[in-house]
Amino acid sequence: MTRRVAVVAGGHSKFGKRYDATMRELCAEAYKPVYDAGITQDRIDATVLSYAASQFTGQGAGSALMADSIGLQEKPHLRVESACATGTASIRAAYGMVASGLYDVMLVLGVEQMNRVSSATATEYMSRAGDMRWEYPYGISFPAFYALMASRYMAEYNLPHDVLSMISVKSHHYGAQNPKAHLPKEVSFEEANNAVPICRPLNLYDCSLITDGAAAVVLVAEPRVKEFTDQPMWIKGMGAGASEMMIQDRPSLTSIPGAKRAAKAAYKMAGLQPKDINMAEVHDCFSIAELIAYEDLGFAEPGKGRQLIENKEVYHTGRIPVNCDGGLKSKGHPLGATGVSMTYEVLSQMRKKAEKPTRQIKDVKYGLVHNVGQSGQFVNVIIYERGW
Amino acid sequence: MTRRVAVVAGGHSKFGKRYDATMRELCAEAYKPVYDAGITQDRIDATVLSYAASQFTGQGAGSALMADSIGLQEKPHLRVESACATGTASIRAAYGMVASGLYDVMLVLGVEQMNRVSSATATEYMSRAGDMRWEYPYGISFPAFYALMASRYMAEYNLPHDVLSMISVKSHHYGAQNPKAHLPKEVSFEEANNAVPICRPLNLYDCSLITDGAAAVVLVAEPRVKEFTDQPMWIKGMGAGASEMMIQDRPSLTSIPGAKRAAKAAYKMAGLQPKDINMAEVHDCFSIAELIAYEDLGFAEPGKGRQLIENKEVYHTGRIPVNCDGGLKSKGHPLGATGVSMTYEVLSQMRKKAEKPTRQIKDVKYGLVHNVGQSGQFVNVIIYERGW
Repeated sequence: MTRRVAVVAGGHSKFGKRYDATMRELCAEAYKPVYDAGITQDRIDATVLSYAASQFTGQGAGSALMADSIGLQEKPHLRVESACATGTASIRAAYGMVASGLYDVMLVLGVEQMNRVSSATATEYMSRAGDMRWEYPYGISFPAFYALMASRYMAEYNLPHDVLSMISVKSHHYGAQNPKAHLPKEVSFEEANNAVPICRPLNLYDCSLITDGAAAVVLVAEPRVKEFTDQPMWIKGMGAGASEMMIQDRPSLTSIPGAKRAAKAAYKMAGLQPKDINMAEVHDCFSIAELIAYEDLGFAEPGKGRQLIENKEVYHTGRIPVNCDGGLKSKGHPLGATGVSMTYEVLSQMRKKAEKPTRQIKDVKYGLVHNVGQSGQFVNVIIYERGW
Repeated sequence: MTRRVAVVAGGHSKFGKRYDATMRELCAEAYKPVYDAGITQDRIDATVLSYAASQFTGQGAGSALMADSIGLQEKPHLRVESACATGTASIRAAYGMVASGLYDVMLVLGVEQMNRVSSATATEYMSRAGDMRWEYPYGISFPAFYALMASRYMAEYNLPHDVLSMISVKSHHYGAQNPKAHLPKEVSFEEANNAVPICRPLNLYDCSLITDGAAAVVLVAEPRVKEFTDQPMWIKGMGAGASEMMIQDRPSLTSIPGAKRAAKAAYKMAGLQPKDINMAEVHDCFSIAELIAYEDLGFAEPGKGRQLIENKEVYHTGRIPVNCDGGLKSKGHPLGATGVSMTYEVLSQMRKKAEKPTRQIKDVKYGLVHNVGQSGQFVNVIIYERGW
């Protein structure tokens, strides 16, 4: 009944502290590869142009500015915002508008420029995504939300911090091979495990980065996909889930209820199971978040996620490779771009376009993206299918 | 191919300076009539929960807070933002997700709480929706953007300010009959025409209000509409258009290019013409904006919009009644709620539920909503059809 929708192209800026670029220029940098692939402005019907927070740059209602920066100022656009899950929420909204027949070709472009303010100020701005009446005034920030989860997980499952550091080592191992990464350097287990504390039990290497960057993908309706590519990546499953606003209301801190709901919905729509997935991009805003994601996505039983990293099953040659682009930890986490960047990475892997064979996953039929907003209040899970 | 989508219910808070209510409480007030109509949380699949600017309350990423406030914290949600066009952009995104089959039943709830800061500060925050590099730093605010349009229109078509005041008089005439209105009082032509200047040629009564409020509508896919109502309002046409980011780049100031594009797309999808429309809710953020809307929507030729107000054809008994709820001028303009409130009003008029016969439009088969973001950078036009 409904039309199938494919991702046909993607673009990605360099992630990092981009003092050299304005928000406009980051958008243009992410759109350029799409343009170069022949998807010029006249072929695009409408756009979703997104960023998470206007405080970083002061720019309100920025989708018009983004559209203007890439020559799409006359095409319908809107902004979607779901904090750190903004990128995939934008893809979800665009999917609906394309599948429904409202538009045939949509560009989804996510951006964030976070380093025009200090990292302390950026952290404070992000904290405002917590409840402004009942959480923020008491000083809880995002490292603290995830430190609570880590503490509870460590207590409940007797988890040593070592396991979290192993995840950080993996992230940096792959980020070092990704030319788009914000912090492309290897770290040793000792460095990662003995870094300065940020919010105990989380240390510097357990935390993702405050990053500037942009990423873009193009969604096209089935009847027109062939005009654009012979390597389409179909949207096979699209799940969204949510959790209570305040972390105190959660029944458990060792799992994110919204993530489990989102995964269930995505697997159901795709007609697939966790074992069918060949790679995943998960939301490792903190190392503990990646560990919990293994379990929420059904790759491991509750409390058993550690086996995946201990046995290197989440490395690029393993059973279920995870974040072989460096993840939020090493590639970086420009909020509004992150979910789009994850999708870009799945497309690159399917097309065997990883820059180095040492991070190229062998054969990706199904790739999964898991993108979490706030401390789990909203989660999108998308399953993509190779179409060739 | 695609599924038809209907609005089956709506809710609306009192608009005004709502110092008595938090953002949570405004959301609950708008959802309550929907709940009372039997659309309880378990019947809703997903939501779009929107507001335009986080600066007013400081709350970032507020859709989780909004969901939580009405017991929908476990359902998929996202926030759409398009400045003053946020409400209709949210309906556009939800339309796609419902028509595509992703969800059957969606709640769209828009809110804004603007009076926790002074009106000067609120005006300054809104100015940040202008270009933060090339407009805002030079001090241009929204009254100034529209004053430029008014000056140009007055010069080009030899328009006296009297005509703008006639529009304000109409807005207040109908707002006085709307118990939900922010400023429900009649104003005389003399009062309106001799009010203090805000930004010449616009005076106090040419400007809309800084309002707190919320509004909600429920969208349902065709196969399930009968479960909810025997008075569905179908989405017949859905058009969106955009304009250059900076007002200096516009070819003309006497018309909004994005509004004409949006109207064209909406009429095309609906298979209708301007003469078929029985009522319109237009974006009268300033009196000049309503006059321009008459022309951009095709109700009058360029330069001839004044005849509609001079001949009272835009009154409730006229040829094309416009804003018979008081409009942004008298009902109020809580940014994220406005486009949803417009839709609520069309539904109420179609169902003959206007509170007083002196503002009830006789027979509405087709109602149009016109919602403008920023100074015209993005515009949504939706045409609704009575389904009974």
